[in-house]
Amino acid sequence: MKALVYHGPGNKSWEEKPRPAIQQPGDAVVRITKTTICGTDLHILKGDVPEVTDGRILGHEGVGVIEETGSSVTNFKKGDHVLISCITSCGKCDYCKRGMYSHCENGGWILGHLIDGTQAEYTRIPFADNSLYHIPAGADEEALVMLSDILPTGFECGVLNGQVKPGDTVAIVGAGPVGLAALLTAQFYSPAEIIMIDPDEARLAVSKKLGATQTINNRKENALDKVKELTGNKGADTVIEAVGIPETFELCQYLVAPGGRIANVGVHGRSVDLHLEILWAHNISITTRLVDTVTTPMLMKTVQSAKLNPKQLITHHFKLSDINHAYDTFQHADREKALKVILTNE
Amino acid sequence: MKALVYHGPGNKSWEEKPRPAIQQPGDAVVRITKTTICGTDLHILKGDVPEVTDGRILGHEGVGVIEETGSSVTNFKKGDHVLISCITSCGKCDYCKRGMYSHCENGGWILGHLIDGTQAEYTRIPFADNSLYHIPAGADEEALVMLSDILPTGFECGVLNGQVKPGDTVAIVGAGPVGLAALLTAQFYSPAEIIMIDPDEARLAVSKKLGATQTINNRKENALDKVKELTGNKGADTVIEAVGIPETFELCQYLVAPGGRIANVGVHGRSVDLHLEILWAHNISITTRLVDTVTTPMLMKTVQSAKLNPKQLITHHFKLSDINHAYDTFQHADREKALKVILTNE
Amino acid sequence: MKALVYHGPGNKSWEEKPRPAIQQPGDAVVRITKTTICGTDLHILKGDVPEVTDGRILGHEGVGVIEETGSSVTNFKKGDHVLISCITSCGKCDYCKRGMYSHCENGGWILGHLIDGTQAEYTRIPFADNSLYHIPAGADEEALVMLSDILPTGFECGVLNGQVKPGDTVAIVGAGPVGLAALLTAQFYSPAEIIMIDPDEARLAVSKKLGATQTINNRKENALDKVKELTGNKGADTVIEAVGIPETFELCQYLVAPGGRIANVGVHGRSVDLHLEILWAHNISITTRLVDTVTTPMLMKTVQSAKLNPKQLITHHFKLSDINHAYDTFQHADREKALKVILTNE
Amino acid sequence: MKALVYHGPGNKSWEEKPRPAIQQPGDAVVRITKTTICGTDLHILKGDVPEVTDGRILGHEGVGVIEETGSSVTNFKKGDHVLISCITSCGKCDYCKRGMYSHCENGGWILGHLIDGTQAEYTRIPFADNSLYHIPAGADEEALVMLSDILPTGFECGVLNGQVKPGDTVAIVGAGPVGLAALLTAQFYSPAEIIMIDPDEARLAVSKKLGATQTINNRKENALDKVKELTGNKGADTVIEAVGIPETFELCQYLVAPGGRIANVGVHGRSVDLHLEILWAHNISITTRLVDTVTTPMLMKTVQSAKLNPKQLITHHFKLSDINHAYDTFQHADREKALKVILTNE
Repeated sequence: MKALVYHGPGNKSWEEKPRPAIQQPGDAVVRITKTTICGTDLHILKGDVPEVTDGRILGHEGVGVIEETGSSVTNFKKGDHVLISCITSCGKCDYCKRGMYSHCENGGWILGHLIDGTQAEYTRIPFADNSLYHIPAGADEEALVMLSDILPTGFECGVLNGQVKPGDTVAIVGAGPVGLAALLTAQFYSPAEIIMIDPDEARLAVSKKLGATQTINNRKENALDKVKELTGNKGADTVIEAVGIPETFELCQYLVAPGGRIANVGVHGRSVDLHLEILWAHNISITTRLVDTVTTPMLMKTVQSAKLNPKQLITHHFKLSDINHAYDTFQHADREKALKVILTNE
Repeated sequence: MKALVYHGPGNKSWEEKPRPAIQQPGDAVVRITKTTICGTDLHILKGDVPEVTDGRILGHEGVGVIEETGSSVTNFKKGDHVLISCITSCGKCDYCKRGMYSHCENGGWILGHLIDGTQAEYTRIPFADNSLYHIPAGADEEALVMLSDILPTGFECGVLNGQVKPGDTVAIVGAGPVGLAALLTAQFYSPAEIIMIDPDEARLAVSKKLGATQTINNRKENALDKVKELTGNKGADTVIEAVGIPETFELCQYLVAPGGRIANVGVHGRSVDLHLEILWAHNISITTRLVDTVTTPMLMKTVQSAKLNPKQLITHHFKLSDINHAYDTFQHADREKALKVILTNE
Repeated sequence: MKALVYHGPGNKSWEEKPRPAIQQPGDAVVRITKTTICGTDLHILKGDVPEVTDGRILGHEGVGVIEETGSSVTNFKKGDHVLISCITSCGKCDYCKRGMYSHCENGGWILGHLIDGTQAEYTRIPFADNSLYHIPAGADEEALVMLSDILPTGFECGVLNGQVKPGDTVAIVGAGPVGLAALLTAQFYSPAEIIMIDPDEARLAVSKKLGATQTINNRKENALDKVKELTGNKGADTVIEAVGIPETFELCQYLVAPGGRIANVGVHGRSVDLHLEILWAHNISITTRLVDTVTTPMLMKTVQSAKLNPKQLITHHFKLSDINHAYDTFQHADREKALKVILTNE
Repeated sequence: MKALVYHGPGNKSWEEKPRPAIQQPGDAVVRITKTTICGTDLHILKGDVPEVTDGRILGHEGVGVIEETGSSVTNFKKGDHVLISCITSCGKCDYCKRGMYSHCENGGWILGHLIDGTQAEYTRIPFADNSLYHIPAGADEEALVMLSDILPTGFECGVLNGQVKPGDTVAIVGAGPVGLAALLTAQFYSPAEIIMIDPDEARLAVSKKLGATQTINNRKENALDKVKELTGNKGADTVIEAVGIPETFELCQYLVAPGGRIANVGVHGRSVDLHLEILWAHNISITTRLVDTVTTPMLMKTVQSAKLNPKQLITHHFKLSDINHAYDTFQHADREKALKVILTNE
């Protein structure tokens, strides 16, 4: 089969690899029908994720069709149409039993990281019974590819941890795909205001279309002043950090109202300054989380019932075999006005 | 001033009464601008609420303008535009500190019940600082009259107690004003399905318009069979009882899924059969509640941000002086297709 | 091997049966070292549980040693010392993922019910990875037998559902083994008062020893009057029903304070009267639950750290081969002052 | 009357001041019977709290007897024996209604800070109905002085925010009075292990006596290594920071297990480094809080029922008129082995 293979920082190639086979009784082999590219894949390519070694097939998102199952798999059979979760859950370690699949002792984020991933014609999924989800007849495959990673990430790490509530004011710092996923899913809870903060006008325009009630271009305006003005000087009840750099996390600390919550979604490479000299008395919480994908079944129901339309995040389509071109587009997201790209295995 | 006065079962009159005056330091006197009639007022008139005695001014909902305040009132002053809560909260007893205003040791539901109420040109509100809410400039008075009682009732007793969640299936038994208030506010949490059950086609048609995804006429169809069919035989995650008779509470017990919740909103006059021989092993909860109106500030924000449009429940308008006519219409709600009526003090 | 076999209402025998073998990849065969008898076993013997058919080996509690494991079992291996949960969890159905193991689509309560159980020299445990727990070196086996069923039952159905909190008043109706398990585990949360209500003086004396702050013999005293007197006329914050008959559930409805919780633990054979004509306005919750044993790992930690001493519930010891004698003692619990009996496979 | 008056950094005197009088309808004047000194008072004396101005009477803890009440006070009358909360709550602003008394728009921490305090023969308490608590007949006054501030501080900011649960491992960094208050109240929830970390052997010895299951002298041992060893390399479920310097907050970040909680109690004067480059994926929460004293009624019940014995924190007794001596002792807590000192107005 063909697959996108990592060959060290800056190097990748679409090349022939052996088709994966069942290795454990809980495995399934899935023929990929659609996959996508994540910001994390770009980090890997830069060499920021040293656990990814030469020869690894990239990708941790996708939908497909079951090709083969191991002897202990009971939830799925050949021919089943499935959504692949970016997080592999064994279902039987302490963390899985507590719903913390991201810390699964036998899985977690391993696809396209510690084992071969989904940017390929076929992929092997360990613990298939707990790591795949049935796609209902008639469902839109492209919408569901968004549920492999970014929708549960924005929702679990941003919206659930941020405890968004009806009537609240939410501020989201960062209008990239994950920030927009938080924007979409924050609306499950009917906040009064969702303020989107980003330096890119195009992304702010998308935010408005996807439900932001206010947008702030923090290259042009002082975001803190604006949020204070919009909130009667109180700040936001929930602040979602969806960038991952010290400057944006710093901003979040000033935006949060007494009694409020800062929900970190961004992947950080450096420590940040925490202003406990101010915040110690502000009755706030700060949360961190690697997505658990424990809400995937619920998110699928909201897609089925049209409460959530994740396809709004898709800007580009490519053939899977044209994946190098797709990476090029995604790497120049600003220039290309790219959010999520869909790769179809035809 | 003029007021609607109760004179024993079946008797009421629009008559001259002395204008109320400040009695305690925490009191406010409010000139009523708009009020409405509640199903409870009809119960009182039938003689079902014996604590209401001859001479009592009826009514526990309304908006108006502050006329005068007692010496310890600090949140309000003459001329302030206010929403009156149906529940009076002293703010300093154990129950109020726990957010259970309905059980306030010095208040609770007293307006139009134990003290004179709001169906009058003026009314006295005890503990004004904790029982009135500022109406923002430009807000729609008629929408806010709905927040005196039925919106918080449907929301707190039905939706909050029923723990409605994104992707869930909700069944609401009873499409009267309070059932519809639950329907409107259940949507704050983006359930996948809201199934409305009622024997009146007109009310089911309104339900559809207000957001029900399914309606069942339980005079014509077997509601249990239909709900089982719609839920893959599981039942509803949240079942809201908004009628108040044994038959509808019985139905709720069959509709609820394992792990689900029955939230009682209806005012019951008789005991009901609880099928513990079945339900003991179903991991369910049943909740009861007299509205606390602790969510009124939040509901006002959702109205201000257009997440909630309570005016959709208003079907008729009258002058306050025409209140006997309004009662006649509301008492024949079926015939008149009446939901809520607005009475304006011109 | 030898096992206790059910032969229809009133009939059981300690007889030779084939030793169980691995049937599915997730199975384990366990050599029983200690087991016990549950009130449910007595119900089965009376014929109250018709799903139990002639030839079934009884019992759903026990500890033992792994004899053999199926090909997909990874948490356990031959020789491991294990606690058997009364609830079998597949770990991969929707209910298991939600922590509702009692409603597992492939398991639930099946041991000694739908498949052969633990009152035998050997037993087969399906889905072993999710249904067994490692016994730490040095732990007391007899204490842990109590964690197969009654401790998690009293804790999950009574204490957790009843939301016991520091400073609260708890009333427990029924001082049998499960009521006492609720008494022991309620103390995890430091309520101010735990009032134990039962007609048996011997059980009330045990209750006092196990931490009850008050006891009421409801054959001799009016329990409602006494609880009202002890609570300044308010009632109990949490009321735990641990009997399972209409009379005791009726009592619970009068004992509960406004804002309180009734947690049903009892197994009911008939419907009960629910006084919604009173309770509709009392802001209470009523919960039901079949034990999920989702708290077993936590309970094991409390036993290991000596916060919980479940051995206090054991009154009698027998050899496993003397099980008919043990049943006789347990069936005459009053006369024998029996709570839990331990059966040892020597 | 006599009072302890602040006269700028380093200066205080026990001097004659006018006896306070009722200023607002909600005020009460309380004759102090017992008071104490808080670490915060030492900060004020150093000049660290510039809002405290020359002439201010210090102190925010105490018990006493009502001398006089304003016209709107209804919960208290002359002669009532009362506990004074360090936090003044108006009961009618948005924050008070949400239980965030610390952020009360009309109160909060004002005693001995923005208005005259409790280290005096008499003190004026604004919003008395919401800021005082009845002392039950027969209760121990000295125990209750501990409930003015440090017990609710340790409990709310440390234990509640840290979500201590049965079977959990708790690490508390700092064994001063507030860390010990967290230690005492953490036991309400029966954690399996409470590890106390402090460089002072005397305080560690007290910790052992008050319920710590492990102590670590972090001057002599590597606390991280020790906690990892004690927790099977996982870390603590709840970590409570009760010091308030960057080094201890840094330590907490390494001690916390995936899925765990860092509850900050310490008053910080500088920003700290937050290691988001590690923690972003650890699914943790960090909380801050100024005590709300919303749990005072509950804590009083636990004292009355002997679940909590706060007197264990008292090491020294003085006459109120000997307060300068008491400060001297408290300022040399190490040398004097002082925890809390009691000052009695004889």
